[in-house]
Amino acid sequence: MSSTPLPDRAAIRTAAERIAPFIRRTPMLRLAGEALGPRHEVWLKLELLQASGSFKPRGAFNRMLAGTLPAAGVIAASGGNHGAAVAYAARALGVPAEIFVPEITGAAKRARIAGYGARLVVGGAAYDAAREASERRAAETGALQVHAYDQAEVLAGQGTLALEFEEQAPGLTHLLVATGGGGLIGGVAAWHAGSGTQVISVEPEGCPTLASALAAGRPVPAPVGGIAADSLGARQVGGLMFPIAARHVAAAVLVSDYAIRAAQRELWDACRLIAEPGGATALSALLSGAWVAPETARVGVVICGGNTDPAAALPG
Amino acid sequence: MSSTPLPDRAAIRTAAERIAPFIRRTPMLRLAGEALGPRHEVWLKLELLQASGSFKPRGAFNRMLAGTLPAAGVIAASGGNHGAAVAYAARALGVPAEIFVPEITGAAKRARIAGYGARLVVGGAAYDAAREASERRAAETGALQVHAYDQAEVLAGQGTLALEFEEQAPGLTHLLVATGGGGLIGGVAAWHAGSGTQVISVEPEGCPTLASALAAGRPVPAPVGGIAADSLGARQVGGLMFPIAARHVAAAVLVSDYAIRAAQRELWDACRLIAEPGGATALSALLSGAWVAPETARVGVVICGGNTDPAAALPG
Repeated sequence: MSSTPLPDRAAIRTAAERIAPFIRRTPMLRLAGEALGPRHEVWLKLELLQASGSFKPRGAFNRMLAGTLPAAGVIAASGGNHGAAVAYAARALGVPAEIFVPEITGAAKRARIAGYGARLVVGGAAYDAAREASERRAAETGALQVHAYDQAEVLAGQGTLALEFEEQAPGLTHLLVATGGGGLIGGVAAWHAGSGTQVISVEPEGCPTLASALAAGRPVPAPVGGIAADSLGARQVGGLMFPIAARHVAAAVLVSDYAIRAAQRELWDACRLIAEPGGATALSALLSGAWVAPETARVGVVICGGNTDPAAALPG
Repeated sequence: MSSTPLPDRAAIRTAAERIAPFIRRTPMLRLAGEALGPRHEVWLKLELLQASGSFKPRGAFNRMLAGTLPAAGVIAASGGNHGAAVAYAARALGVPAEIFVPEITGAAKRARIAGYGARLVVGGAAYDAAREASERRAAETGALQVHAYDQAEVLAGQGTLALEFEEQAPGLTHLLVATGGGGLIGGVAAWHAGSGTQVISVEPEGCPTLASALAAGRPVPAPVGGIAADSLGARQVGGLMFPIAARHVAAAVLVSDYAIRAAQRELWDACRLIAEPGGATALSALLSGAWVAPETARVGVVICGGNTDPAAALPG
């Protein structure tokens, strides 16, 4: 799907320069451990404050700026966040966008996509069906396909988050990252290949794409369910990210929907942050004990998205 | 009420060192102008992510750490945020706290105060009545009074926000700060006395304490009303802050409740931040045009609180 090589530090640095005028350098929040329950020093990367409400513009801009954009514009399939990012980027770059989302995509994400002026097409039960529809449509229109995770430029773009995180908080021992299709953790693991920082994948029990792939030794279909399915519910991890993850992801942890809801609640109570379920998934591993940090750990956690209805994020 | 002199840069530096172990260095979000409407470079200080959900722990900790705490603990009157901060600080320092709030104090703020383990006393129509009740009670118990704004240590503590802001974003030309009793803007103006940064006060039309005081040449009672009254609804500005403000606040701007609601909505739409009305008040001056930045301005805006029900912050 792409002729560029797998991302390495040089590709990620190139991406960071390319996308810098268009994205936000998202802030960090350093917390003394007790603020969030565990006793470790925790650094939250507030990527939910990124333009369009998730990390996705990093990859979308890098893909769209890597070559010449056709007059037909861009096309993407998405659970919602990637679509919002592509729509946002298309508006910034002055090209049309068509975004395909499945029926599970919530109102907040649909409104975001339409609000950025993209043509929104809703259909299919989950991400995979939307992706197939978008590919058929791209063959008709000639629009540039911007994949939600399985393109080298997209991986390199998401990897810029790890570069930025390292500049803002050097010397972290562990990074917790939520995994869906694997674009973010693929880029982050590519940045940290051979570094002293361990990259930990966290997935909902309801859509365990990377855990399933690591068990099978290759990307395999996994269930798509649970409260984070509209951001982490890819059918399987990308082919490009898998070899990176197999070598450079230190652990693949699963968390319950209950733990994710509790992490959303804790982010609000302790930090006044509204994260979507997928955005709170990485933190939930730490708070629930699904992943236990070594005693001297300095832990980084990516809060990767906030495209939700605030009322829905804080039930009861 | 206090024997320490009015805060200057030295007092604010002392406060910053004293409170550092207990508060968060809150992050900045730099926005290219268009993200929030105006075309200027804007730096948001995300003080709504402070411990307890507002800037108030800065002053509360500085007051409580400046001397010896009596066994009877501390007592405060508050529209809510100061009470939450004193309760939070008392828990951290291991002393009891009694907090008096008026009836307009919302559920989110009451829950915060009680959740930190303080004794909560509700009574009176607005802040002023709660303050009188707290003073009577303090005379009985011997608890240390932690005033919401009119103590030198409180002013110096709030001034640490300006010190931190300057370290994080040097060379800003203007700082927009919401004013209620004036503790925050008093501390900020004390820090910037004689600096190249202009400090701009923003108040709701419904509770124009500083605008009224500046017009009268002294603190005078002002109306207490509108959607931000539970955080900005002091009866009048403090006697300590007034001479600082009279000399070092460049302008006192008024905004409508409509403009405040629109700023709350924009903070969510563009940044995924939930601010309470008082927390969005400073920004609303910029977005509504109530204050117009000079063409070359680099504007800092304090988003000073987030203690609200997220659903209420985003009506319709």
